Amino acid sequence: MKVRNLVGERFKERPSDCVVDSHALMIRGGYIKPVANGIFSLYTPAKRITQKIEQIIREEMDRLDGQEVMFPVVLPGSLWEESGRFQSVDSTLVRFSDRNDTSMVLGMTHEEASVQLVREYANSYSKYPFMIYQIQTKFRDEARPRAGLIRVREFTMKDAYSFHTSQEDLEQYYARCLRAYERIYARAGVPEVIAVAADSGMMGGSVSHEFMMLTPIGEDSIVICPECGYRANMEAADSIVENENRLPVAELTKVHTPGVKTIEELTQLLQVPAVHMAKAVVYQRNRDDSFVVVFIRGDLETNDTKIKNYLGDAVHPAVIDADSPVVAGFIGPVGLSEKVTVLFDRSLEGIDYLVCGANEEDYHYTGLNLQRDVAHVEYVDVAKAVDGGICPHCGKHSLTISRGIEVGNIFQLGTKYTKAMNMTYTDQEGNSQYPIMGCYGIGVGRLAASVAEVSHDEYGPIWPISIAPWQVHICCLRADNAEVKGFADALYEELMAQGVEVLYDERDIRPGAMFSDADLLGVPVRVVVSPKNLDQQVVEITTRDKSVSLKAPKEEAAAEIQKVIAQLRAEVAAKVPQSI
Amino acid sequence: MKVRNLVGERFKERPSDCVVDSHALMIRGGYIKPVANGIFSLYTPAKRITQKIEQIIREEMDRLDGQEVMFPVVLPGSLWEESGRFQSVDSTLVRFSDRNDTSMVLGMTHEEASVQLVREYANSYSKYPFMIYQIQTKFRDEARPRAGLIRVREFTMKDAYSFHTSQEDLEQYYARCLRAYERIYARAGVPEVIAVAADSGMMGGSVSHEFMMLTPIGEDSIVICPECGYRANMEAADSIVENENRLPVAELTKVHTPGVKTIEELTQLLQVPAVHMAKAVVYQRNRDDSFVVVFIRGDLETNDTKIKNYLGDAVHPAVIDADSPVVAGFIGPVGLSEKVTVLFDRSLEGIDYLVCGANEEDYHYTGLNLQRDVAHVEYVDVAKAVDGGICPHCGKHSLTISRGIEVGNIFQLGTKYTKAMNMTYTDQEGNSQYPIMGCYGIGVGRLAASVAEVSHDEYGPIWPISIAPWQVHICCLRADNAEVKGFADALYEELMAQGVEVLYDERDIRPGAMFSDADLLGVPVRVVVSPKNLDQQVVEITTRDKSVSLKAPKEEAAAEIQKVIAQLRAEVAAKVPQSI
Repeated sequence: MKVRNLVGERFKERPSDCVVDSHALMIRGGYIKPVANGIFSLYTPAKRITQKIEQIIREEMDRLDGQEVMFPVVLPGSLWEESGRFQSVDSTLVRFSDRNDTSMVLGMTHEEASVQLVREYANSYSKYPFMIYQIQTKFRDEARPRAGLIRVREFTMKDAYSFHTSQEDLEQYYARCLRAYERIYARAGVPEVIAVAADSGMMGGSVSHEFMMLTPIGEDSIVICPECGYRANMEAADSIVENENRLPVAELTKVHTPGVKTIEELTQLLQVPAVHMAKAVVYQRNRDDSFVVVFIRGDLETNDTKIKNYLGDAVHPAVIDADSPVVAGFIGPVGLSEKVTVLFDRSLEGIDYLVCGANEEDYHYTGLNLQRDVAHVEYVDVAKAVDGGICPHCGKHSLTISRGIEVGNIFQLGTKYTKAMNMTYTDQEGNSQYPIMGCYGIGVGRLAASVAEVSHDEYGPIWPISIAPWQVHICCLRADNAEVKGFADALYEELMAQGVEVLYDERDIRPGAMFSDADLLGVPVRVVVSPKNLDQQVVEITTRDKSVSLKAPKEEAAAEIQKVIAQLRAEVAAKVPQSI
Repeated sequence: MKVRNLVGERFKERPSDCVVDSHALMIRGGYIKPVANGIFSLYTPAKRITQKIEQIIREEMDRLDGQEVMFPVVLPGSLWEESGRFQSVDSTLVRFSDRNDTSMVLGMTHEEASVQLVREYANSYSKYPFMIYQIQTKFRDEARPRAGLIRVREFTMKDAYSFHTSQEDLEQYYARCLRAYERIYARAGVPEVIAVAADSGMMGGSVSHEFMMLTPIGEDSIVICPECGYRANMEAADSIVENENRLPVAELTKVHTPGVKTIEELTQLLQVPAVHMAKAVVYQRNRDDSFVVVFIRGDLETNDTKIKNYLGDAVHPAVIDADSPVVAGFIGPVGLSEKVTVLFDRSLEGIDYLVCGANEEDYHYTGLNLQRDVAHVEYVDVAKAVDGGICPHCGKHSLTISRGIEVGNIFQLGTKYTKAMNMTYTDQEGNSQYPIMGCYGIGVGRLAASVAEVSHDEYGPIWPISIAPWQVHICCLRADNAEVKGFADALYEELMAQGVEVLYDERDIRPGAMFSDADLLGVPVRVVVSPKNLDQQVVEITTRDKSVSLKAPKEEAAAEIQKVIAQLRAEVAAKVPQSI
């Protein structure tokens, strides 16, 4: 491929609407073009990268005995009604009516479609286990697309669905699949992706893992224990707290605290530490806007996912006005309206002295003792884990919090979908059973963007050889020099004949402009053919990651380039774990 | 792949809702499963076939210097408003609103998206020509999906868009593309697909071709001249008629024809041949239901596409009631309401004596002479070509009419989209110009189904080696016999190690059931390993198309199988035309 023919603009200026580097570089390098909010077209370089990622995924799925199939993008609403998700999923699920007024949806995930495909086939235990997967377009009408291909509305996803006759069989397969995912990331050149325990969200099921690429621009917070290896998404991380009483038991006393509404102000005014404050965090249920108040230790934050899971209801931060059953800034458990659902975080358990709101404008209580002053207190874990906090696995004060991009997830679904959609098989004893499912997803474009995010410099992405759009980029400086041009042309043809994917720049432009374009295209091996080099009977071979920089005799150019390619490939391969 | 693990049901009974053979066989063979009307999931065999077709297409597009890109499935309605198609396309275009009430559509074709992708990039003549293509999911809300994958609502399509600075350049490229299409069909094992002149329909532009697989179940009528090679879709075929006067000029005379409304009845009653009848065919414009009457010679049929193109308006067959401006069964050009648009087909030109309706219940005219009795008669070609009719190219009475499935189409679009969407480039003289476009489509699934339609027997599809899901199908009869099983296992492993795609059946089932499944799966090379064969020190090698049937010494089994594969491949390759 000649750079002069490559469709797509490349330019220097960082687009003002790009917050993250990978987004800016993929726009600047002619990889992607926005078509609508969170919807992109891919130019050839991005298409080639995603195709290579898809092929790696395909090979690893096939190694897991996966069978590639294809589900529709447009699905009948009735199928989603079978699982109950037609109603339960929010407007992220696009619903529309076709010309016959039949309700249709755009597939955002394909559990229903996978059950529909196999429920007649898999009617006997002898057909199990099996796994089917597809690599297909998905649409999710995300409220806040961001960061280029990292959070989009339309994307290509590999989604796999496995079916089993026992939980043990699922767990065994799940472990193989987890390893296959580690292989996929390593083969794609990002072995540093880690698996973390996750919340299963709308997918249902109990056990699930997310694969996280750690980077400061990630949307997710990851809780990691460097001591024992515990890793979980903040959403799913247990919060273990040590509650200590620094203040003695006292009487419940109403105090005048005019205009003092925050923990910081209260701490200062009353000279009571935040660990003795019962902070109120107020939500409303999405369903009916009814109020939920969560009391939590003053120094901690609430974890919305845990609250949602505990309530079995989605919630949003409350909008408090004069008609609300709470007094903003002065909420406490004593005398709170009975209309309000109250949760107590475990961080308040056993604390003898607390400060809290008095449910009256400008008043707080001191000396609150939950055991004494409030009936029926049940404590639940609805707090966010904190940096330096206690590891729920090894018990040390060792937790660290990092940011990550979720680049894959796997779920043990159980029988949620097979039960709802009445898929059964006959077991060896002749009894009817519901199969047990697992599902396994990877967003292809997001993985490509995440690689660019963790592997770039200020000049452009540094693509790993295994997913690079081309392996070699030949820069022919002074294409007006017949000897130089002739040599570069011949090298281009020779490498192509050897099956190397080559990008060839023989435009009559300044070397600086040529190298800028090469940097933006991020091809791993760069070869410079110039009058000066040829005078010395050499070509210059460098790698985009700067690990190699050499001059090879010009007669051996192709062979030396092949060696560098092989070396880069070996470096990637060395980090790929064995499959199990 | 072992047949025992292959997900999908295979069965004997022809499903009652399958009208065409390929549809029935693809359901019976576990290739596809309906999810909604005109929407299918693909099982692994179909996915493998379509992937191979896609790869053939990809290679041919790359050979045309095409650059693979990816457009979104979901597009903003505003983009389709730029071209005017948001309004002009009927409900085949799915429109919906996203969560922010922005109007969106499901891409049914991507001319707008292709212009959007390149209009900033391709701002100078030096960037031209270029071609971009994608292989992607499309959705068209067809009113009448039918015949399995042949007419569906959701499908995978390769769509390519080329951009040029002159009509000559487009025409040259168009010719190369036409040849590439011939190569694609030949490589897919169906070299008998023919290119025919086509009507451009909603795509706009003037010159276009369709690629037709001739089969009686085709939806399209194709006009072919075996003498000179003229080939056109009926929609676009010129109708050449020789008008002769068998009856002399006569006076215009009103005759009483009670209850006689059809040409047949009139011919009988008046003893006037149909070639002297002016048949009235009545339409209404979709836009405003206004009436259009087409007069045509009694023995000919009207061509709706030509009428639509002439009027520049879509029409439908009229619904005539008491308030209509015409009298059903008695319509004629003399005294017809002025509210009605009247067209005269060329088949009436120069005929001195015609019978027509008198625009009065139960009355006709005889002796109508259009030149004499009607003012301002202009004749247009709105007739269907007929079997045995005159070839518009060589002039012989040689036309034949065949049925065909459209398996591809290519269009010279001109500047329709670039003008509407204001895409310009600066030419060598510094002037601003609109680029000239071509577009080129192939439906992947339809091609797969069409191959099955023209290449099957009553037992199943006969897949050409180039697109077959697997190349070899090993049937191990008596898997309970350790020697037989051992040999078959080893052969399976040996062929796989050689890179052959093998389907392996070692189930403990009757040979008849095993062969039925093999027939349905349609794999080109079948190898039977049985106690009887091994006793004779041989394996049986046959081809699904019955062209090969031999016994090979068991030690040479793999080598002999490879030979048969090579022979089948060579047969396909021999029919592939050179590219230009």
